[in-house]
Amino acid sequence: MGAGRRERDGDGSTPPEHPTITFSPSAEFPPLSETELGALHDVGQRWRADLGGHRPRDAVLPLDPSLEQYRRPPAPGRFGRLGRIEMFRTERRGQLTATGSADASGTRLRRTLARLRRVLLGPPLASAAVLQERMRKLVALPVLSSDLLSSVAYGPEAMLAILVLAGSGALGLSLPIAAGLVVLMITVGTSYRQTIYAYPHGAGSYLVASDSLGPRFGLTAAAGLILDYVLTVSVSVAAGIGAITSALPGLTPFTVPLGLLVIAGLLAGNLRGVRAAGKIFAAPTYLFIAAVLLLFAAGLAQAAARGFTPVPPPPVGAVEGLGLLVVLRAFASGASSMTGIEAVADAVPAFRPVEWRQARTTLTWMVGILVVLFAGLTILIDFNGLVPRGDETLLSQLARRTFPTGPWYALIQAATTMVLLLAANTAFNDFPRLLFFMARDSYAPRRFLHMGDRLAFSNGIVALAVAAALVFVAFGGYTQSLIPLYAVGVFLAFTLSQAGMVAHWRRHRGRNWRRRAALNATGALLCGLVLVTAAITKFVEGAWVVVLAVPLLVLLCLHIRWHYDAMRQALALPPPDTPDPDQGGRPDPMGRPNRVAESTGPDDLLVDQTPREVRHLVVVPVARLNLAAMRALAYATSLGQPVFAVHLSPEQEEADRFRRQWETWGDHLRLETIISPYRTVIAPLAQYVEALHTVRPEVTLTVVVPEIVVRHLWHKLLHTRTELRLRRALRDLPGVVVTSVPIHLPE
Amino acid sequence: MGAGRRERDGDGSTPPEHPTITFSPSAEFPPLSETELGALHDVGQRWRADLGGHRPRDAVLPLDPSLEQYRRPPAPGRFGRLGRIEMFRTERRGQLTATGSADASGTRLRRTLARLRRVLLGPPLASAAVLQERMRKLVALPVLSSDLLSSVAYGPEAMLAILVLAGSGALGLSLPIAAGLVVLMITVGTSYRQTIYAYPHGAGSYLVASDSLGPRFGLTAAAGLILDYVLTVSVSVAAGIGAITSALPGLTPFTVPLGLLVIAGLLAGNLRGVRAAGKIFAAPTYLFIAAVLLLFAAGLAQAAARGFTPVPPPPVGAVEGLGLLVVLRAFASGASSMTGIEAVADAVPAFRPVEWRQARTTLTWMVGILVVLFAGLTILIDFNGLVPRGDETLLSQLARRTFPTGPWYALIQAATTMVLLLAANTAFNDFPRLLFFMARDSYAPRRFLHMGDRLAFSNGIVALAVAAALVFVAFGGYTQSLIPLYAVGVFLAFTLSQAGMVAHWRRHRGRNWRRRAALNATGALLCGLVLVTAAITKFVEGAWVVVLAVPLLVLLCLHIRWHYDAMRQALALPPPDTPDPDQGGRPDPMGRPNRVAESTGPDDLLVDQTPREVRHLVVVPVARLNLAAMRALAYATSLGQPVFAVHLSPEQEEADRFRRQWETWGDHLRLETIISPYRTVIAPLAQYVEALHTVRPEVTLTVVVPEIVVRHLWHKLLHTRTELRLRRALRDLPGVVVTSVPIHLPE
Repeated sequence: MGAGRRERDGDGSTPPEHPTITFSPSAEFPPLSETELGALHDVGQRWRADLGGHRPRDAVLPLDPSLEQYRRPPAPGRFGRLGRIEMFRTERRGQLTATGSADASGTRLRRTLARLRRVLLGPPLASAAVLQERMRKLVALPVLSSDLLSSVAYGPEAMLAILVLAGSGALGLSLPIAAGLVVLMITVGTSYRQTIYAYPHGAGSYLVASDSLGPRFGLTAAAGLILDYVLTVSVSVAAGIGAITSALPGLTPFTVPLGLLVIAGLLAGNLRGVRAAGKIFAAPTYLFIAAVLLLFAAGLAQAAARGFTPVPPPPVGAVEGLGLLVVLRAFASGASSMTGIEAVADAVPAFRPVEWRQARTTLTWMVGILVVLFAGLTILIDFNGLVPRGDETLLSQLARRTFPTGPWYALIQAATTMVLLLAANTAFNDFPRLLFFMARDSYAPRRFLHMGDRLAFSNGIVALAVAAALVFVAFGGYTQSLIPLYAVGVFLAFTLSQAGMVAHWRRHRGRNWRRRAALNATGALLCGLVLVTAAITKFVEGAWVVVLAVPLLVLLCLHIRWHYDAMRQALALPPPDTPDPDQGGRPDPMGRPNRVAESTGPDDLLVDQTPREVRHLVVVPVARLNLAAMRALAYATSLGQPVFAVHLSPEQEEADRFRRQWETWGDHLRLETIISPYRTVIAPLAQYVEALHTVRPEVTLTVVVPEIVVRHLWHKLLHTRTELRLRRALRDLPGVVVTSVPIHLPE
Repeated sequence: MGAGRRERDGDGSTPPEHPTITFSPSAEFPPLSETELGALHDVGQRWRADLGGHRPRDAVLPLDPSLEQYRRPPAPGRFGRLGRIEMFRTERRGQLTATGSADASGTRLRRTLARLRRVLLGPPLASAAVLQERMRKLVALPVLSSDLLSSVAYGPEAMLAILVLAGSGALGLSLPIAAGLVVLMITVGTSYRQTIYAYPHGAGSYLVASDSLGPRFGLTAAAGLILDYVLTVSVSVAAGIGAITSALPGLTPFTVPLGLLVIAGLLAGNLRGVRAAGKIFAAPTYLFIAAVLLLFAAGLAQAAARGFTPVPPPPVGAVEGLGLLVVLRAFASGASSMTGIEAVADAVPAFRPVEWRQARTTLTWMVGILVVLFAGLTILIDFNGLVPRGDETLLSQLARRTFPTGPWYALIQAATTMVLLLAANTAFNDFPRLLFFMARDSYAPRRFLHMGDRLAFSNGIVALAVAAALVFVAFGGYTQSLIPLYAVGVFLAFTLSQAGMVAHWRRHRGRNWRRRAALNATGALLCGLVLVTAAITKFVEGAWVVVLAVPLLVLLCLHIRWHYDAMRQALALPPPDTPDPDQGGRPDPMGRPNRVAESTGPDDLLVDQTPREVRHLVVVPVARLNLAAMRALAYATSLGQPVFAVHLSPEQEEADRFRRQWETWGDHLRLETIISPYRTVIAPLAQYVEALHTVRPEVTLTVVVPEIVVRHLWHKLLHTRTELRLRRALRDLPGVVVTSVPIHLPE
């Protein structure tokens, strides 16, 4: 595993230090391994032998690449000729530093877009700023907990909605089930505390399951989480918009555009970077907590006023018999209050140093608040004898009963709405990080390793926004269709993560390891039970999508890994210990035989590792003897390598005419004409180059093509763009190099 | 004008011969003018002086470009290594002929598609077959006349539908108006006979109006025709499908898919080539003519049986008063019977030799048949006292009254349907030809000059099919919405064409020119009247689209011409008489000063006309020292030109690490590192290259980039494709050449 198997003792005080910063922008450029360095040295030795006394690095260049000697005091105009040069600063010999971002270049449209982007997302942040973008606990708590805490807005209701199927008499079971859920919450929370401690550089289910159970389990957990993050955004936005449209029914027709607007807002906020997102989003979470606590206080005061006499629930007839299945389903549904508990563990490296300690404290606070809110709401609902209704949420009923008049009801509803929207934001913190870890292990496209110019993982953020928007639109922004898909993925991840912790403790032992393993095993068992119950009882309602998608995602990730592994192998330098060219398929540097007949593989001949081994032949396709052709011919000839021209003609007559023109020019280069009787252009040229390649695969063919560059996009329609199509046709041929000589048309 | 002003006497016997074959596939490669040849010779002299005694054409190449020495007897397997070589045949020294088309290459999917295409469209036809693809008169008549003749299916009805607005008493005016229309038909037909004679290589309105009145009038006519061809396809297909769905109402919901299917069928048929299209489409037109003549005969027999007593029409109340406007509108509406008369004149070069003579005969026959059908139908309708009804066409009413029982009614309806669908086909003959002429004059994209491998102008055919399908779908296949747009374009072209003929006769005189000019003037006047009436009376119903689109199309064509003119000028070699580099912006071949400070224009420095004038600097961006980088470095170094490498790093740490790796390799080339603190990759690299270009614009920078080539399309998503993005960013820089060194990943 790319995450590395860190051996440690787990002695209970501080985890062992890890030298690398996990989220460095250099993650895109992993260092070479010892083997690779050895191979590199070996190749360098071959170059040295090959070059002999000649040292290309000492040759005089026609200009100074460090740009040092061209600097002069700032010109009066901003757009003077030296503008480009001043965009680089020299700090040491052979090294330049770019001083600006890319905004200044390109067309006017592109500059305007860049300026707009800067206004929306803020100026670019240098890599050196990466540490400042960490979160304090007080900022991290609201940012990371909104998903978890907003779940109490629908968790208790989901539990009671199942119980009430067995009649209002069964509602009394809510308190023991809630107690069980509280135990589960504390168990999972404790487990994650240990996980954060054991994996201080990122402790998500993917990393833990990969590390302890193997990559396939890790990928399974990751697939569950990926789906869950996408659904978190869709569901939370849908529920939030639903809350708004319940209050203001006139907005109902605009559900989908409103939701897309919210997703766009979340996208922009998160592209600005972590700290800015924290600042924007801190207040509402605290407001929600305060509002619910206020509700508790008022409810308690009212209960005390009437001597703590519980209100009996209205009689509701039983639809189903009360059995174990109903209890389990109620438990599983209530467990949806726990979605989002993963957030802190995934986000450890976004905390300020010491990361793991801050993260643990934050997690403890979050779970504590969750338990208080969940238990308090369940008790208060039970005490007030409330029953789930289709037209109003339980939280709304409770708030309305507690505050029949005044602004407090509206405040609680508004806070609920906002915290639901913020829950969506949590996914924007976690999803790109998960993809970063997966990309580091080559299970996701490498572009998810790239930090945008605001130090956020822009690609992951954009991917999440797009996926969530698609799901949101596909389901028409209708919450109830999305809910059944929701919890399966996250409990899959929980189960694997905790099972992984059991394996971790068994392997690494340490103090109290049996007690810890037992605690984790209990958690894994409970989570697994919830997972199985949710998958089975919600299967027809939509959980099948998740059950189907998880293995497909795992397969996709494995395929991506295979592809990257194949690429790495294909691009690896030959290791120093396989010098035999007959076995390794590498060319013999001393001189090689004509391999026309015996060679078979497509790419194995042309390793071209040293300059002397490259034998050139330059081919210039010429359509018409104009300036473009002359420039290409002059460029090709000036390289000083063997060169000839080729002309494609639809008819003999035209071929003869062209040859006469060629002789008028002076016949300075050898000319081949190809008659294409079927008037196709690209295919015969490509086949001709392929034929040349076939007869002498060891010759590197350089095809020099003039490229007409037009100013306006639609002008491209007026050109046949032979250069582009030829390049595409020749792309499959190994050892064929295509060189574009640009010719710029005036406006 | 590109069509050339052919001076001739018009002596009435045979037109003067024109040496070039108009539809040669070499039209894409126009010969160089005398000036261009002179400039070419001049440039060649400069090369000679520049190269001195060195003759690159005599240098030994590492392989024989004529492939002669690599041939061997056919290998046992078809897919042997020499397959590519055998695809070329050597006929003379320095010339190869491609023996197959492009089908054999590419992936399995591409080969399957090529095979499918061959089954649908037939095997490719060699350029030498171009003459065989001409039409005999008996084939040309149905192919070209279906548009014209099918118009009688709705022309008389359109006329009567206007007259009946003034009450059934006004219907008696149909005979004098029809007489006027017959005069108009004969006038226009006679005019086109003269046009074919005067312009034997293509006598469409565009050519005539361009030649006689100037290019803007020609473009106006062309714009009208372009719209009309698109509408012909849409309207005819819509009417044809409408006739089918009237007979079989169950098919009504499938109007749009059925129409698209018909358009696709027409597309395929026409892509197969002209002759095949003729064979497929000959029978139904003859069937239609026969069916209508049968109708006449039976109607005449019935009339004779009742002693030629006319049936009075049923009384219809007048909606409008009978005035000149109603008569004019009726005339204009009836004139829609004439759409399609243009077809023969446009298609002259598709006839077998002698083209103009065959075309004239065909046109005479067509107009004769038109007059007979139109007059006969009008008389028979009047005689039977039929009145236009909303639910049944007049032709259908007439057929039903004449043949109350038996299969004859069904036959007439089926023939009408088929001839309407064939009318759409006429446009597929004319539209690509019109665009060919326009492209030859640089008023349309050059790709319309290209003959496909079936010797048809595939691009024009496809363009028409797409445009017509779009219009068809946009109007839901509803004929009545399309009809008002229909006639304006074609009468615009008629008017301009005949006015052009007046100008032609005035300029060229010849025998009887006054009589001819008077005849054409009458035609122009009548056509102009129809045009103005149609445009005004149908303006609100949809003619405004055409009135708006024609000037826009003309502007577009002019813009295209300007663009091509600018390109031609930009790509022209310097004429021999402007050797002064200071005035012409051309470089001084003897050696030039450092132009950093004084130069301003973007592209004027780098004409690079002779090899010695090219000063090279090769830049190799390196991200990671793997095989791809080594290959690029070896390639770049092997060119023997000054070279250095550049590495882009997000952080100092990574930059230092890379330099250490570089030193492990052996530090064979100069290395520059650029720190990109905002982690962007493409922009700083492009700006760096631009800075290098700025300080020494006379140096040609060659950027050598390894290009990872993947097998599967979706694998592209896994790569950041730096090569492509860098190429795009560097494209705007003159004098920067981008070279892709391909690296192929295994499956």
